[in-house]
Amino acid sequence: MKLASLKGGRDGRLVVVSNDLSTYVEAGTVAPTLQAALDDWSAVAPRLEQLASNLDRGSPAGLPFHEAALAAPLPRAYQWADGSAYVNHVALVRQARGAELPDSFWHDPLIYQGGSDGFLGSHDPISLSNEDWGCDMEAEVVVVTDDVPQGVSREAAISLIRLIGLVNDVSLRNLIPAELAKGFGFYQSKPASGLSSVFVTPDSLGPRWRDGKLYGTLKVDLNDQPFGRADAGIDMTFDFGTLIAHLAATRSLAAGTIVGSGTVSNRDANGGPGRPAADGGLGYSCIAEARMVQTILTGGPATPFLKHDDRVRIWMDDEDGRPIFGTIDQKVKVGQ
Amino acid sequence: MKLASLKGGRDGRLVVVSNDLSTYVEAGTVAPTLQAALDDWSAVAPRLEQLASNLDRGSPAGLPFHEAALAAPLPRAYQWADGSAYVNHVALVRQARGAELPDSFWHDPLIYQGGSDGFLGSHDPISLSNEDWGCDMEAEVVVVTDDVPQGVSREAAISLIRLIGLVNDVSLRNLIPAELAKGFGFYQSKPASGLSSVFVTPDSLGPRWRDGKLYGTLKVDLNDQPFGRADAGIDMTFDFGTLIAHLAATRSLAAGTIVGSGTVSNRDANGGPGRPAADGGLGYSCIAEARMVQTILTGGPATPFLKHDDRVRIWMDDEDGRPIFGTIDQKVKVGQ
Repeated sequence: MKLASLKGGRDGRLVVVSNDLSTYVEAGTVAPTLQAALDDWSAVAPRLEQLASNLDRGSPAGLPFHEAALAAPLPRAYQWADGSAYVNHVALVRQARGAELPDSFWHDPLIYQGGSDGFLGSHDPISLSNEDWGCDMEAEVVVVTDDVPQGVSREAAISLIRLIGLVNDVSLRNLIPAELAKGFGFYQSKPASGLSSVFVTPDSLGPRWRDGKLYGTLKVDLNDQPFGRADAGIDMTFDFGTLIAHLAATRSLAAGTIVGSGTVSNRDANGGPGRPAADGGLGYSCIAEARMVQTILTGGPATPFLKHDDRVRIWMDDEDGRPIFGTIDQKVKVGQ
Repeated sequence: MKLASLKGGRDGRLVVVSNDLSTYVEAGTVAPTLQAALDDWSAVAPRLEQLASNLDRGSPAGLPFHEAALAAPLPRAYQWADGSAYVNHVALVRQARGAELPDSFWHDPLIYQGGSDGFLGSHDPISLSNEDWGCDMEAEVVVVTDDVPQGVSREAAISLIRLIGLVNDVSLRNLIPAELAKGFGFYQSKPASGLSSVFVTPDSLGPRWRDGKLYGTLKVDLNDQPFGRADAGIDMTFDFGTLIAHLAATRSLAAGTIVGSGTVSNRDANGGPGRPAADGGLGYSCIAEARMVQTILTGGPATPFLKHDDRVRIWMDDEDGRPIFGTIDQKVKVGQ
C-alpha cells in the first residue's frame, strides 16, 4: 500500500495511491490525514488496504496522480529523529578533517532530533536565504513508527514500523561546525527537510525490506547528472530496529515518529571512499561526502554546495524501473 | 485567559479555566484541542476569551477544577526547543568541571531540540527505569508560539507568543556526558517532560510579562522542602524574543512550537553561586546546580539525584499567593 497527502490544510488530505503511482483515490472517508491513520493504525490500515486493492484492480479507476501537487505525506509530525547509520559516511567526515573515529561509533548509534513541525513536499523548492550557508542535500531512508513502548527490543521495534519512505535532509554545512562546537547538536544548520511523494507499507516492498533495512539503489541526481548510486541496504551499520530501540531506551515514542537512516553511503569495492558516479562508481548521497573524498584524494574540495536553481532528485526504482516512492525533485530558490 | 487539557484521546480536551483555577468550562464547541486552537488562533482566541470572561464572572458557574485529572496542555506538540537562557547556570556547570566558558555563550544562545511527541501532565509520575541514570528536575519557563516566519525579528517574535507556562524538563544526568561527547546533542538523556497544569495568555500576566521575560519567583520544592526560589526574570541573558529569532533564522516555526528558557538560575547577591534555599538563599532549579555549587564550595556533591517516590513541585505564585500556572507536582516511580 502506498499513501500520500494532497496539499490542503496543515496536515494535507490523505490519499491512497496505486502501486504504479498512476492513480489515486481520496481516503478521507477512512481517515482525513495520514497522522489520523497512524493514530489508529490497526483499525484504519485494513480499510486503506481495501481502497488500495480496489484501486490496483482499476475499480474504481481513480484520478491521475501528479507528484507536483503533493504535500509531504506527513506535512508536520511529532518527532523526526535522524540517525547516522552508515558509519562509513561518518568515518569519511572524520578522515577528511584528520580526526579519529571512536570505536564506540560502530556500536552506539549517533542520532539527533530534527525539526518535525514542517516538512517540504517532494517537489517543493528549498527556500534558502543565503548561499553562503553551504546548502547540501542528504539522501536517506526513513521509517514511520506506530506507538513504541519504552525499552522496546530491536525485533519488536521492527514489527512497529508502519511505513517506509525517503527524505532529503537539507543541511547547511557552513553553519554546522560552529553549531556542533557549542555541544548541543544541530538546530539552525538543519532547516526543513523534503519527504518522498509516497510512503509505503513494509509488505509492499517484498524482499527489498528485510532485517530492518531497505535494499536497493538510492539514486541521487544533481542538476540532471548521476551523483549517487549507493545501495541503502549495504554498509548500514545500524538497522532501523536498532535505531528505534536506541530512541526508546528511556522513553516511549508516539505514533507517527519519523526515524531517518542518515546519509546513505557505501564503501567502494576496494574498501576505500567511493568513486564518483560519473566514473562508474557508487557516488555520494550528499555533496559533503563528495567534497570529503575530493579532499582526501586531492587535498581540497571541488564540488560546490547548492546554489540558486540547482536541482536535486532522489528516488529508488523498482524492478521495472519505476520509482517506488515517487521522486524527490527539489530546486533551490535563494531569497524567496 | 488560562487554558488546560483534560485527559482524553491523544490531544486531550481543551478547557478554559477561571483565573483563580477554581473552575473550568469545556471549550470543545470552540476548539476540540489546544493544538486546534493554536492552528487558528486569531479566530479562536476571542471566542475562548469570551468563555473565560463569562467563567470569571461566574456565569455559567463552571465545574470544579482539579489539577490531578489533567493531561499536559499540549499532550503532544510539533516542536519543543529548549534554550539555556540563564547563562549563569551554564557558567556554573563549566566552573564545576574546571572548563572555561566561551565568551560567545553570552551572545549566541545554546538550544537543543527535545522530544515533543509526549508531554507528561502536571501530576503524572516520572516513570524511571533505572535510578543509576541520575534523574533530575529542571524548572523552566516555556512559551508557545503562533506560526513564526523565517527571519523573524526579536520584537515580532515576542508579538507571536500566544501562551506562557512552566515545564519540568526531566534530565538523566548520568547519561549526558557520554551522549554530549558524541557531538550530536541530547536524546536518551532527555525523557518526557512535565508541563504546568495551565498555560496562560501574556495579557493575563500584567507586568510580570515584559520584554519577552516572565518575572516572579519560580518555586521549586524537593520532597516538600524549599529547594529553588530564583526569579525567572532575573539573569535571563536571552529573552524569549531572542530565542525565537535564533530558532527561526533558517526556517519557519509552526503554530504550537514550545520554546523553553532552560533551567532558571540566579546569581547570589554577592555575585557568586546561589546559597541553598534552606539557608535563606535563592536555591536551585535543578539538583545538578546544587551539586555543582557543593562541588565548588566543598569539593564534592552532596544532594543525590531523584530516587523512587521523591517528589518535585514547581510553581509560581501570584500576588495573592495562588499558583498562576497551577503546580507541577510529580513523583518519581522506578520500574513502573
